[in-house]
Amino acid sequence: MRVLLTGFEPFGGETVNPSGEAVKRLDGKIIAGAEVVARILPVAWDDAGPSCQQAIAEVDPDIVLMVGQAGGRTAISIERVAINVQNGKDNKEVAREEAPIDPDGPAAYFGTLPVKKMAERIAAAGIPAVVSNTAGTYLCNHIMYHTLHSAATKGQRVRGTFIHIPFLPEQVANKPGQPSMALETIVRALEIAVETAVAAVKEND
Amino acid sequence: MRVLLTGFEPFGGETVNPSGEAVKRLDGKIIAGAEVVARILPVAWDDAGPSCQQAIAEVDPDIVLMVGQAGGRTAISIERVAINVQNGKDNKEVAREEAPIDPDGPAAYFGTLPVKKMAERIAAAGIPAVVSNTAGTYLCNHIMYHTLHSAATKGQRVRGTFIHIPFLPEQVANKPGQPSMALETIVRALEIAVETAVAAVKEND
Amino acid sequence: MRVLLTGFEPFGGETVNPSGEAVKRLDGKIIAGAEVVARILPVAWDDAGPSCQQAIAEVDPDIVLMVGQAGGRTAISIERVAINVQNGKDNKEVAREEAPIDPDGPAAYFGTLPVKKMAERIAAAGIPAVVSNTAGTYLCNHIMYHTLHSAATKGQRVRGTFIHIPFLPEQVANKPGQPSMALETIVRALEIAVETAVAAVKEND
Amino acid sequence: MRVLLTGFEPFGGETVNPSGEAVKRLDGKIIAGAEVVARILPVAWDDAGPSCQQAIAEVDPDIVLMVGQAGGRTAISIERVAINVQNGKDNKEVAREEAPIDPDGPAAYFGTLPVKKMAERIAAAGIPAVVSNTAGTYLCNHIMYHTLHSAATKGQRVRGTFIHIPFLPEQVANKPGQPSMALETIVRALEIAVETAVAAVKEND
Repeated sequence: MRVLLTGFEPFGGETVNPSGEAVKRLDGKIIAGAEVVARILPVAWDDAGPSCQQAIAEVDPDIVLMVGQAGGRTAISIERVAINVQNGKDNKEVAREEAPIDPDGPAAYFGTLPVKKMAERIAAAGIPAVVSNTAGTYLCNHIMYHTLHSAATKGQRVRGTFIHIPFLPEQVANKPGQPSMALETIVRALEIAVETAVAAVKEND
Repeated sequence: MRVLLTGFEPFGGETVNPSGEAVKRLDGKIIAGAEVVARILPVAWDDAGPSCQQAIAEVDPDIVLMVGQAGGRTAISIERVAINVQNGKDNKEVAREEAPIDPDGPAAYFGTLPVKKMAERIAAAGIPAVVSNTAGTYLCNHIMYHTLHSAATKGQRVRGTFIHIPFLPEQVANKPGQPSMALETIVRALEIAVETAVAAVKEND
Repeated sequence: MRVLLTGFEPFGGETVNPSGEAVKRLDGKIIAGAEVVARILPVAWDDAGPSCQQAIAEVDPDIVLMVGQAGGRTAISIERVAINVQNGKDNKEVAREEAPIDPDGPAAYFGTLPVKKMAERIAAAGIPAVVSNTAGTYLCNHIMYHTLHSAATKGQRVRGTFIHIPFLPEQVANKPGQPSMALETIVRALEIAVETAVAAVKEND
Repeated sequence: MRVLLTGFEPFGGETVNPSGEAVKRLDGKIIAGAEVVARILPVAWDDAGPSCQQAIAEVDPDIVLMVGQAGGRTAISIERVAINVQNGKDNKEVAREEAPIDPDGPAAYFGTLPVKKMAERIAAAGIPAVVSNTAGTYLCNHIMYHTLHSAATKGQRVRGTFIHIPFLPEQVANKPGQPSMALETIVRALEIAVETAVAAVKEND
């Protein structure tokens, strides 16, 4: 079994993206018998989806866990749903405002992995984790929708969802009131997410 | 030079107190040439002060850094000031309500270490840190006031202040929205606090 | 033109529900030439939908604005999307856990009124307002999904969306840190929401 | 009996200061038999204190309630204590950094009115209210310290404390996540604060 883990490059004036740092730590690891391959996606409306599809074509994964930074959150957030809308300016200064990702696509897709179980297993290991009901309307929601829409319409076997992670401590060292999580804690949470996803695919859960 | 680090035992229904865990990790260490001695204080109005005074008598420290848990905070908080008031029920079910710590004592004491420099040095190392203007009115404020009041009135040479630290991740794993900080990050912050305090005492800053 | 405004009865241990109080204030009013009819819905999984459908049958509205309490929010939240999932225990102690609202329904429906314009108009009047990307998974999301699903599948002409409102000050008078909004401010926001919705329907926007 | 209510002029880029708006509404009113006089103080390190002292000289009040804006707070905050430190840049671009208000003054003064009772009475009327243990280190803390220090050292009979109030809704209409409170609610809270203070002075509480 193969697991594709994606992170994003930095955006929004940050010099680091915890999602990229975290997935790189797991690249090449074997978790629960599955081979993990990590890729970094561009923060660009036109490029993120094709870049992820290319990785899926190359890796042919059973599972894709897309990871992204969610500044302001305190917990690992397993995303339940991606919606067909996009807002904001990407790293290439391309702006989208209240625009559909696919004008012919459905309003939303649910993640195709057991999100509640993933959050519960991470929390049971002592790491704050929740199921989140919104991935926002920026690139994180975009790639989750794009990947699930592609899987549904192209008949790909891959199952997936999105995981939002907090800022790293060094990103908010001078931003009073902004929560953060250590990289080691985030990496451990992702390992548990992979383990839970692998078990779900094996059990066809 | 000797540094006394105090933490507290668990309270408020928690089974662990990050302050106790953190200071135990530094017990016996040499930091910036100074010997660190750690002690755990009881969460009890009548016992915390005498317990800390006994530790000061035994260790004869140049510096006392008192550490305590501040649930809900995102950053290491170097406390600027302790006030002459106490509120709440301790681990022995003894309650205080709007009562002075010492009816003849002044309204407040400022910490006698460079709190701004301590916060800045910790933040410069990539760990969220701020100067806080309130240590609350529970045991943390109590021990800070008690120790500074004792030093002032007994002519002790010891300089000190209080450091509030966030919850550990495992304390809030199932409490959505509650921020936390990894123990390793907290311990590193305390090391920097000790280094900064030792330098201040050496330079008589 | 007719506008149906729905609120909810109190739940979760509260003795008042600001949504019920607010819509009652507007019952019978004429806003932007449209007649406003207010109804209070039960906080019950099996009854809320039928109760709303009955009101729609009786009132035959062009617009339905469903309103509900969102404790913890600071702003009027115009909901963009309702998802096909339900969680929690209702006022009749009936529990739902990760259950679909309609096993055959789509993952989500977007509100069929211009949510961004509604939020902008309310904010322009000096009242905190945002577009929200999640109505949660409790009764508020349920009624929004149920109403939009019914409209889509039954071919009803009614257009609608959901509006989450903060706690009233009296609900959080003794809950430090919980934000609130005055009833007068909420009622004014709903008037503007109705005006904006009526204009959108007239202009077929 | 006479009550001096002070508010501040706008600062920090705001075009309105809720404290100024609120106290103006009560100027000239008779509350609990006491005459209320309102004054607006400048947000200037060198002028706020003298301006308040001049008002005290002119009005000869029994009670002074100083009111100021505390952006980010959800509740009326009755301040317990003012500390001898000042930080920040005033409306004249004069900056203070970790500077004492009076190098010869004590570390802090407690407000000389029953702060807990004031908060309780306001909350009992359905308005969120708390006792706060920090008035910060900007002009609000400055004027509270200056006024209490002057009263103590000059032997003035006036009793007083500081009240922090939230943003008005219109100040945060486009700032998602920022709590606010309606002006009418704030004014009602100040009336109750005055009533409670007048009763305390009458009863010598």
